[in-house]
Amino acid sequence: MAEAKNLNDLLYETLKDIYFAEKQILTALPKMAEAAQSADLKQAFETHKGETETHVARLEEVFELIGKPAQQKTCNAILGIIEEGKEVIVEFDGTDALDAGLIAGAQAVEHYEISRYGTMVSWAKRLGMDEVAELLAQTLDEEETTDELLSEIAEAEVNAEAA
Amino acid sequence: MAEAKNLNDLLYETLKDIYFAEKQILTALPKMAEAAQSADLKQAFETHKGETETHVARLEEVFELIGKPAQQKTCNAILGIIEEGKEVIVEFDGTDALDAGLIAGAQAVEHYEISRYGTMVSWAKRLGMDEVAELLAQTLDEEETTDELLSEIAEAEVNAEAA
Repeated sequence: MAEAKNLNDLLYETLKDIYFAEKQILTALPKMAEAAQSADLKQAFETHKGETETHVARLEEVFELIGKPAQQKTCNAILGIIEEGKEVIVEFDGTDALDAGLIAGAQAVEHYEISRYGTMVSWAKRLGMDEVAELLAQTLDEEETTDELLSEIAEAEVNAEAA
Repeated sequence: MAEAKNLNDLLYETLKDIYFAEKQILTALPKMAEAAQSADLKQAFETHKGETETHVARLEEVFELIGKPAQQKTCNAILGIIEEGKEVIVEFDGTDALDAGLIAGAQAVEHYEISRYGTMVSWAKRLGMDEVAELLAQTLDEEETTDELLSEIAEAEVNAEAA
């Protein structure tokens, strides 16, 4: 019954959504690394691919902790964000602005994840799931660090190249 | 020619994307305000609708400043994010977790905007468009404040209700 649904259900639905999203990101990152012109940016995408593998493993640990199957649920948000990133690769291929566009797309991905992990950390804490909250907070921290690193690469190097 | 594209073009493409997104958000906010159970949350969505009207007007000012037509470009990211928000309204209708779900959806919207406006402010500064950067920074600031307000409402009231 709909009436029985609560924050536990919302958390589970959101975990399935971000589990799908992380797997999509894992597929997108090598293409972004390949397209990147800047060596720093290429490296940042490759490093983040490794982190994303850890994020997937952490989500599987969280599914174990809450005793529910690790399932994916189609996340139209991440599909839309990645689709826009692909359009930029096509439209700005061979131009000095490509890297700036790649960074913009990657930061949209990071912000989607920051919003979802931020929400889930808050919910897990409220539900008294300290271990779950801790695992999700580690990923949140890494997404925020990646977002900042991308801003630094943009400001230090890529935007000047593109202008 | 593709080779001629630069940061100016990226900025214009992103302006068209967020112009579309803001107009979609303007349509979604009254539905979110109507669905919200918490009086504070309802008020937050209504206040943000007024702010969003200002954001649309500011974008039109920016299009004027850069001397290009105010056009919309379909933004699949925001369509996906809003679609996920609608699913939550349907799935959690009549439950104590609905407001927590509404806030999660709204924060995903805010973070998309924070990422796009953050990127555009950085590009506009690099391009020496101080007035454009200033207008976009005002909106960025309001999106960040809304995101923080939503976190406060969730922590102070809504999540406890939903748990």
